[in-house]
Amino acid sequence: MLNFTFSNVTKIIFGRGVEEQTGKEAKLWGKKVLLHYGGGHIVRTGLKDRVVESLREAGLEVVELGGAQPNPRLSLVREGIELARKEKVDLIVAVGGGSAIDSAKAIGIGVPYEGDVWDFYAGKAKAEESLPLGVVLTIPAAGSESSPSSVITNEDGWLKVGYGALVMRPKFALLNPELTFTLPAYQTACGVSDMMAHIMERYFTQEGDVGFSDHLCEAALRSIMQEAPIAIAEPENYGARANIMWAGTIAHNDLLGMGRSEDWASHNIEHELSALYDIAHGAGLSIVFPAWMKYVYKQNPQRFVQFAVRVFGVEQDFHKPERTILEGIRRLEDFFHRIGLPTTLAEAEIPVDRLQEMAEKATAGDTQKLGSFMPLGQADVLAIYELCQGETR
Amino acid sequence: MLNFTFSNVTKIIFGRGVEEQTGKEAKLWGKKVLLHYGGGHIVRTGLKDRVVESLREAGLEVVELGGAQPNPRLSLVREGIELARKEKVDLIVAVGGGSAIDSAKAIGIGVPYEGDVWDFYAGKAKAEESLPLGVVLTIPAAGSESSPSSVITNEDGWLKVGYGALVMRPKFALLNPELTFTLPAYQTACGVSDMMAHIMERYFTQEGDVGFSDHLCEAALRSIMQEAPIAIAEPENYGARANIMWAGTIAHNDLLGMGRSEDWASHNIEHELSALYDIAHGAGLSIVFPAWMKYVYKQNPQRFVQFAVRVFGVEQDFHKPERTILEGIRRLEDFFHRIGLPTTLAEAEIPVDRLQEMAEKATAGDTQKLGSFMPLGQADVLAIYELCQGETR
Repeated sequence: MLNFTFSNVTKIIFGRGVEEQTGKEAKLWGKKVLLHYGGGHIVRTGLKDRVVESLREAGLEVVELGGAQPNPRLSLVREGIELARKEKVDLIVAVGGGSAIDSAKAIGIGVPYEGDVWDFYAGKAKAEESLPLGVVLTIPAAGSESSPSSVITNEDGWLKVGYGALVMRPKFALLNPELTFTLPAYQTACGVSDMMAHIMERYFTQEGDVGFSDHLCEAALRSIMQEAPIAIAEPENYGARANIMWAGTIAHNDLLGMGRSEDWASHNIEHELSALYDIAHGAGLSIVFPAWMKYVYKQNPQRFVQFAVRVFGVEQDFHKPERTILEGIRRLEDFFHRIGLPTTLAEAEIPVDRLQEMAEKATAGDTQKLGSFMPLGQADVLAIYELCQGETR
Repeated sequence: MLNFTFSNVTKIIFGRGVEEQTGKEAKLWGKKVLLHYGGGHIVRTGLKDRVVESLREAGLEVVELGGAQPNPRLSLVREGIELARKEKVDLIVAVGGGSAIDSAKAIGIGVPYEGDVWDFYAGKAKAEESLPLGVVLTIPAAGSESSPSSVITNEDGWLKVGYGALVMRPKFALLNPELTFTLPAYQTACGVSDMMAHIMERYFTQEGDVGFSDHLCEAALRSIMQEAPIAIAEPENYGARANIMWAGTIAHNDLLGMGRSEDWASHNIEHELSALYDIAHGAGLSIVFPAWMKYVYKQNPQRFVQFAVRVFGVEQDFHKPERTILEGIRRLEDFFHRIGLPTTLAEAEIPVDRLQEMAEKATAGDTQKLGSFMPLGQADVLAIYELCQGETR
């Protein structure tokens, strides 16, 4: 087990009706709010108005910036920074899923910074301060509501890049599972895939003596897979929605990765897909993760045997571990299919003519290795994209 | 799932050698430290000197108060409050296990309070502020290093009472598993029993739709039971010690109880035992918990079936759930025996002539119900003490 530091300061307020506490929590951090959100759904359902009302009732002034979209764009972040400076807001409240929150995080660190906000994402600067951020979560998936990270897409070259700093952790997050009742099945499934990937990126480690967090990761995966089909079949099942929402937060609040080296190659490989083709991140991950597994399992077969046996209850073949491993990967694919997600590029109707280009971008022309379970160069990443095509092609 | 608020602000710094960071962390909170610790072991091993050196090197003044003992005493707490006031310390650093930390927490809330510190424990006052507290943990057990609670024994009547308030959560906690290499087998086992009880007090709930935290609780229990015999057989096994230490923190940092009604009857029933007979808390719990289970399982047999199947892998008897349940309890007892703990009063050489008196004290003369899984009156608690005698008596 590696040495680690763990501290999770985000105040999570969870349950029915908690969005009505937005004003009460926000006023602990200032008087003027930039309310950042995405598209029409939040407006149409009246959620935005309820949040604005809660803020105004608590005596706060509200400046609005809508328009955050999946794979949130740098241009809108820059617009938000300008607006926040001009209006001299004290804090930001993001209403939505990972896109609105990631966008708000970028605005938060951009406001007090003299240079251009892309500097952080380009590795040219480190964020030392941020406007305080609060969250009203509507999509359980990214875990951004209590994580210190953010992924932004730069339209100039369609670069999708993540950045994280402790100052970016939200100060408070309001999680009402009822707000997810209206999430369509596909979006619910994409969220589930994303949170499972967050756990698996931590689970697949070469670090030893991490039994406690192994068990927690496995438990979280099993629980999510138990609840997901219920939430999809019964969209207003509070229990299933609540367990998924809470799991999505824990999947990515750092707890499950403590003392472990983490991987994150699959996320980076996926980012190229969703940057180019605007496929949902969760659907990209359900394609990339099984392919990654098939490519890397020989680096540590016993970990993949453990995954198959403990997460999927695969009957272990003690003499032929590979059978157990491949059955585990197969069951992961079966689960993704069951909840309506693709596991090949063909199923997602993504063409295969730019695999080489994506492999180059993901590894910056073979100058960066991806991941730590098995550090991957450009040729490895290309091979994984090829595995994403599926066996039948 | 119940609505909840979760925020865990304690900064956990975990790994080899982290006690050397005491000064660096402490100086974020002030200039003069009350160093509170227990007995000879911490002095003899040189740990106390190393911590003092770290504090002095960081430019802090140190005032010492040793003498914290198992079931920490109110008289020492009062002495600590006097000393802290006289010396005008800015913060407290506790070095030790739950006793030193609980004692330090009581001192922390006592210093800024005008009345007597026992008021908090007697339910007459609520703690609104505390001196900041840092911890160097040497015994994984109580989880006090990141919990907001403290248990103190008032020698006047040997009342052992718990109190908790958010201001009591330590600001930082330094957890070096190597410091636990010298823990004797029995103390290691008592710590394991204590952390398992912290999980089970949360696990046995009547609340529905808590599948995610069910799975986390079960995973934590299985992991602790996997590591404990290793740590006992190989006291210097870093991996086993590290997993147990980290599990002990998570077992009691509130995470595993979120959205659930918790029980805590067994802890209260045990407190009477250790207050009267000065048995280690963990050994008291290994006696009380199985007896409590036998008395209450009929209130929700399916939860006990789940416990037996998922935690102990009991082959389920679908037609006779009671067989599955009793086998689960039996395996818990077997585990406690395996790590050298008693599961009956006779094994612990505790006389049975004051069971009625303890039942009266635990329920304040039958005016207070204990627990929520099955609220227990005086007669119930007496029956559980009688079950603690064991079947062979």
